[in-house]
Amino acid sequence: MLDGRKILITNVTHFAGIAATKYMVEQGATMLCHDESFANDETRSAFEGDTGATALSAQEADPLVADAIDRAGHVDVLINNDAFPAIRAKVEDADPQDMRDGLEAMVTAPFIRTGAIVPHFKQRQAGKIIFLTSAAPFNGLPNYSMYVAARAATNGLAQSLAKELARDNIQVNAIAPNYVENPDYFPPELLADEAAYAKMTKNIPLGRLGKPEEISAVIAFYASDKSDFITGNVLPFAGGWA
Amino acid sequence: MLDGRKILITNVTHFAGIAATKYMVEQGATMLCHDESFANDETRSAFEGDTGATALSAQEADPLVADAIDRAGHVDVLINNDAFPAIRAKVEDADPQDMRDGLEAMVTAPFIRTGAIVPHFKQRQAGKIIFLTSAAPFNGLPNYSMYVAARAATNGLAQSLAKELARDNIQVNAIAPNYVENPDYFPPELLADEAAYAKMTKNIPLGRLGKPEEISAVIAFYASDKSDFITGNVLPFAGGWA
Amino acid sequence: MLDGRKILITNVTHFAGIAATKYMVEQGATMLCHDESFANDETRSAFEGDTGATALSAQEADPLVADAIDRAGHVDVLINNDAFPAIRAKVEDADPQDMRDGLEAMVTAPFIRTGAIVPHFKQRQAGKIIFLTSAAPFNGLPNYSMYVAARAATNGLAQSLAKELARDNIQVNAIAPNYVENPDYFPPELLADEAAYAKMTKNIPLGRLGKPEEISAVIAFYASDKSDFITGNVLPFAGGWA
Amino acid sequence: MLDGRKILITNVTHFAGIAATKYMVEQGATMLCHDESFANDETRSAFEGDTGATALSAQEADPLVADAIDRAGHVDVLINNDAFPAIRAKVEDADPQDMRDGLEAMVTAPFIRTGAIVPHFKQRQAGKIIFLTSAAPFNGLPNYSMYVAARAATNGLAQSLAKELARDNIQVNAIAPNYVENPDYFPPELLADEAAYAKMTKNIPLGRLGKPEEISAVIAFYASDKSDFITGNVLPFAGGWA
Repeated sequence: MLDGRKILITNVTHFAGIAATKYMVEQGATMLCHDESFANDETRSAFEGDTGATALSAQEADPLVADAIDRAGHVDVLINNDAFPAIRAKVEDADPQDMRDGLEAMVTAPFIRTGAIVPHFKQRQAGKIIFLTSAAPFNGLPNYSMYVAARAATNGLAQSLAKELARDNIQVNAIAPNYVENPDYFPPELLADEAAYAKMTKNIPLGRLGKPEEISAVIAFYASDKSDFITGNVLPFAGGWA
Repeated sequence: MLDGRKILITNVTHFAGIAATKYMVEQGATMLCHDESFANDETRSAFEGDTGATALSAQEADPLVADAIDRAGHVDVLINNDAFPAIRAKVEDADPQDMRDGLEAMVTAPFIRTGAIVPHFKQRQAGKIIFLTSAAPFNGLPNYSMYVAARAATNGLAQSLAKELARDNIQVNAIAPNYVENPDYFPPELLADEAAYAKMTKNIPLGRLGKPEEISAVIAFYASDKSDFITGNVLPFAGGWA
Repeated sequence: MLDGRKILITNVTHFAGIAATKYMVEQGATMLCHDESFANDETRSAFEGDTGATALSAQEADPLVADAIDRAGHVDVLINNDAFPAIRAKVEDADPQDMRDGLEAMVTAPFIRTGAIVPHFKQRQAGKIIFLTSAAPFNGLPNYSMYVAARAATNGLAQSLAKELARDNIQVNAIAPNYVENPDYFPPELLADEAAYAKMTKNIPLGRLGKPEEISAVIAFYASDKSDFITGNVLPFAGGWA
Repeated sequence: MLDGRKILITNVTHFAGIAATKYMVEQGATMLCHDESFANDETRSAFEGDTGATALSAQEADPLVADAIDRAGHVDVLINNDAFPAIRAKVEDADPQDMRDGLEAMVTAPFIRTGAIVPHFKQRQAGKIIFLTSAAPFNGLPNYSMYVAARAATNGLAQSLAKELARDNIQVNAIAPNYVENPDYFPPELLADEAAYAKMTKNIPLGRLGKPEEISAVIAFYASDKSDFITGNVLPFAGGWA
């Protein structure tokens, strides 16, 4: 499905990033991966050996995009896989700096990165931008309002950029998961605890967590040319919860 | 992607039905097709020759579902591809019988059909229901309020049935297109007229109509096991218009 | 707030109809009321004595609208307060005739009535249409899919008619309640049962049912000229549930 | 409608702040007003003379809330009327610092202020928070993605805080305007230019801008006890545009 496709993904060690990368390599994609940990040479080559993907050392948007284009000739898809802890705090107890840091990581950072790649996409009159966000804004999450606000911002960003960039044949969508197995939010020991698992999945209509390979397939679909007529979509991916 | 998958689709000669059927046959699916025209034996065998699909003669929900199960051993997916003309009428000029007929065709008919197959899906603890509806309810359509009302009903039906059937591992989703090439709404002579095409696509952010193969790929995705964690979704498929 | 306002409300003995009528009479409105029970002369005059409103005997849309205009000189607002039992049935057990009857009562009937009054509103270049529907389509309701589908249709109708009629200065909105005290869904004996009340209100964020005077105030707001810049809105009125 | 009601509003000289303040004073409310310009004593007393409201000199959230409670005995409602220029910039040309500044002004600032007043509301087991945001996230706005993202965040914040605070009888809603006359976005000379007005209103279904007194009435409604059963609502107020 992704033969010859060149895909830049950020923060690849978070959420379903590694699973999605392996999945898309198998589908024929050239994966260009960013991660904070890739400043380290050894981490980078271990990741490459493990996944068949390319690990880039650049951190900031401009050199990252330039490096990805340089390595692959061009880029077809940017996947903004931004991660930040979902900090639990009542509004009256919250530390405003957490709000600012969350907005920087989940909104401003992917916005800057998107701005860095758009001239390349416009020049090619083709390109795709995928934001991995959260389904939380669809239902709200008591005591996680900072997280919800930031994810709502990015969902809104996707919808607005979709309209801005459509005439240049650039599709912009968000995939908005909740309850998908990932090491950031669901550590293995939690998954192994039957009572905790039952409690956790009680409110998920489908009665289970999503699997990394399931969200990988969705990401691959939005990264492929099969989704060329879809833009401005925020897809809830949460077992029926949203 | 659909190897061994057994899929029942209704009103197959409408909208993207034929394109989607051919696409899914190529992906390995056994396609079981309903259409009003299949009461005629010759039409049926011509369709089978053309598509590699099975054409069923039954029209009513119960014999149709029974026949499909009988032919294929079981059914994995029901695609409700219900068609009805989008009648142009101001609310004060509308014929109430058109509203009733539209609701019967676009809401009650797929509801009955869904009810006919759900016991089979519950018994298997697996199944998928896809409603092909319209993106029109997202934006409204002046002078087409009967059509919008009916499609809104079916989008709501999909979301409510998703919650009702989730614990039996039955996913229910709607795909809500607008501006996809199809003989029902966009006859070839309209597509060939450059001025008409430009006018028609002016309000579509992506600046073009969707292609039958593009919506086929989306239908195939929702019909495959790749979408097992998605339920209750109404996917706008309209080039950014919704 | 409603001094001199002439308001036609249907099915007035259902839901919050009587409370809303009394409330709007107090605010200075001339209330013109339809109800099935008003075919009976005694019921009609008892209602008038009780409420200070005018009870109309006409049942069908055309004579009803004509009679209302005739009595009051003109009509400013039509409130479609359509009632139908929320029938509990799994999709596989449902009686399709219940779906048809529900769609007729909750979708086609207010559509016809709206069509009957729109020429009057267009001629005046002013008018308001309010649909009283349900918040159920926002969340879905397992085993009530017929009801959800019908209410979703009417919410969609409101949004589409809003666009159709805006240039004639006709506002169209829906108020979508859930969990509001009313004799149709919450009989007094249920409200008096503390355990039942606690169970019923468990999923309502505000932890209580809404009161008839609360929804009356919202209806009055949408019926007043204060809402002249609002159209196409579907207002959830459900204690935070939707 | 607001007799004895004590209402704290921020950034009162922006958008419809002054109109709404005068309107609510007329309705019997005690208005406690914040504005950056109120650091100046003369500006403050001129404002008080003009409006009949109280102007507070405090700027930061904690002293502001303390001062308001001190002056009025308690506060019933907080209206977050946060203003920030809607900066026009393509994503590739945008200055990231504008994004940060917008998020600080439109998201973090009202979040901090809300946190400052919530203990007071919890202690009283009553309170209302209203965010004045924008309808832009409903449709997207090409070349204004920073603004849309920030307003989407605050709309999401309102919905999430609604769930967090409902059991303490604190209602949280957002009013999301577009196309309402205000000196920030529509200077008088623009309104006076007929051709510009026609162009500006072309995409508004109702064909005109909203008036300050119209949004004042909506704000007053949400600030009154009439809206006690409404929480988590984001009300589009945009002439049918959203």
